[in-house]
Amino acid sequence: MAGGIGGRFWPVSSQECPKQFLDVLGCGKTLIQLTVDRFKELVPPENIWIVTSADYKKLIEEQLPEIPQENVLYEPCRRNTAPCICYVSWKIKKRNPRANVIVAPSDHIITDVKTFREGIAECMAFSAETDAIVTFGIRPSYPETGYGYIKADLSFSSSRQKNIFRVDSFKEKPTKEVAKEYVSQNNYYWNSGIFIWSVSTIVNAFRVYCPEISHIFEDIYSYYDTPQEQGMINQVFPQCESISIDYAIMEKAEEIFVYPSDFGWSDLGTWSSLRRMSRQDEYGNARIGENIDLYDTYNCIIHATQQKKVVVQGLDGYLVVEKDGTLLICKLSEEQRIKLFH
Amino acid sequence: MAGGIGGRFWPVSSQECPKQFLDVLGCGKTLIQLTVDRFKELVPPENIWIVTSADYKKLIEEQLPEIPQENVLYEPCRRNTAPCICYVSWKIKKRNPRANVIVAPSDHIITDVKTFREGIAECMAFSAETDAIVTFGIRPSYPETGYGYIKADLSFSSSRQKNIFRVDSFKEKPTKEVAKEYVSQNNYYWNSGIFIWSVSTIVNAFRVYCPEISHIFEDIYSYYDTPQEQGMINQVFPQCESISIDYAIMEKAEEIFVYPSDFGWSDLGTWSSLRRMSRQDEYGNARIGENIDLYDTYNCIIHATQQKKVVVQGLDGYLVVEKDGTLLICKLSEEQRIKLFH
Repeated sequence: MAGGIGGRFWPVSSQECPKQFLDVLGCGKTLIQLTVDRFKELVPPENIWIVTSADYKKLIEEQLPEIPQENVLYEPCRRNTAPCICYVSWKIKKRNPRANVIVAPSDHIITDVKTFREGIAECMAFSAETDAIVTFGIRPSYPETGYGYIKADLSFSSSRQKNIFRVDSFKEKPTKEVAKEYVSQNNYYWNSGIFIWSVSTIVNAFRVYCPEISHIFEDIYSYYDTPQEQGMINQVFPQCESISIDYAIMEKAEEIFVYPSDFGWSDLGTWSSLRRMSRQDEYGNARIGENIDLYDTYNCIIHATQQKKVVVQGLDGYLVVEKDGTLLICKLSEEQRIKLFH
Repeated sequence: MAGGIGGRFWPVSSQECPKQFLDVLGCGKTLIQLTVDRFKELVPPENIWIVTSADYKKLIEEQLPEIPQENVLYEPCRRNTAPCICYVSWKIKKRNPRANVIVAPSDHIITDVKTFREGIAECMAFSAETDAIVTFGIRPSYPETGYGYIKADLSFSSSRQKNIFRVDSFKEKPTKEVAKEYVSQNNYYWNSGIFIWSVSTIVNAFRVYCPEISHIFEDIYSYYDTPQEQGMINQVFPQCESISIDYAIMEKAEEIFVYPSDFGWSDLGTWSSLRRMSRQDEYGNARIGENIDLYDTYNCIIHATQQKKVVVQGLDGYLVVEKDGTLLICKLSEEQRIKLFH
């Protein structure tokens, strides 16, 4: 899933080039390249599908030349995750009705890829043999209020896979108090937005729990892989309700499972989370860019990959970002206001 | 005098283009252009002389095309103000031995030009008829520790000019305590570094108080205005002691006068002084550049004339400067450390 527009990462991210297409970690690869890399040992490139906006066609071709063009699907407008997943599921079903599928956002990071791959392998073994919908739950390391949580029923694990548990309920983004309560218990996990299921399972789930969207993509089934496909999609996609997969399927379906894990995951939804996931100096500063000198500076994130030199003296808990002639300096504790600064 | 290298204004100022050649106020004119403009009503361009480094020949030609090339003198190395003034004084003396002279730095600002011109006129009337050396003293508006002070003997004013007083003594840059003491009295003035004298007075003063430097420029008198002049200067100038006009002449000579005035002067020696002299918003912020948005920000100076957009949230008492790919963020109270940041 690569359709996000990344407004919270302004001015580094922009609608023209949102964060999945940026090297926000300063590691030499963009987030979508890192995401594809993460799956390379498990999934050959011809089995990787990307759903994005037509605006990003050129970026996809530049950054992911190994992905076949016919595996890149273009949404004509943004309709959240459910229509995106429904469309690609029908496409995959047409190519291989017995496919086993991993759905993942293109702009998250995972630092412990080995543990992640082991988890994926366990979950796929499970989803291949069952009608299970499996979500990845992340053991919370602190009471984050920016994530949804999954409450697991730890008394009910799968007989096939000891590490996979039935979901009790999905929880909206909590207040700080509630988040602390969740973290203090041992059966609440961050909802990573990474899902595993067989294509037949998810298509059936759409038919049952979300028939309007399901019909839209089923009705044009005969146009898939024809020159008319994009034209039809452009016509019918806007008719879809804008709804997340969580609301459309997860919170309604039976047989939802969670695989609790801990592989250094972040949705990189905020500059604070990027600082947390980046390499920090001994004073808690994350520097992305060359030649960044810090004096008396603590707990900051400095992102300036185009500047020749940056000197910061006397800041604590700030973000400093420069890109393409736009400079932003803001307290990390106030970063939710960035959208108002554009 | 236009030979300074402006290290304290890094990264806006650099040795390649020091602050006198920059539009630090964001008013559309550089400091040296403002300085020349300030004298235009009093002095025709052919009577304006500039002493600078050969490195800045191109900048002078670009910024001050109206100044005759033969009036621009090039020092081969930096030797403080006394050799600079001695050289140009001999040059002026050769052209017009009865000349009346104003010496001024090229990188100061004066906000009340009308009052300044009135002062200049009074002082020139005085220096034309006497052997007086007149300095401009600025009534201190606060206890600045970065300036030298002039103590006036207010009981002894000139019979010709009631507003011109004999100097009691020159005072080095004081401590904060001493500066407060000076300001609490009514006869201490900031030493502006602006001087008025007749050319015969200053040449004689050099002969008496600073004979080594005087000899150097007197000995090559016959080369002035010949093709050999620059070659001779390049040879003899480095032999000069590096010494300020204050040490070389002012503190030794008799007949030193001060003209106390108040015309919104600053040597712009620090970012703090630039903030003080710039137009500020109601929260004490000075913005130099287009499209600078400030939120919860107080007492800052933001200098970013090349950036398309700057957003600052949550700073108090900082400078934020961007130029040519270099970004500096620093507490104004720590700006003396800027030299260490280059």
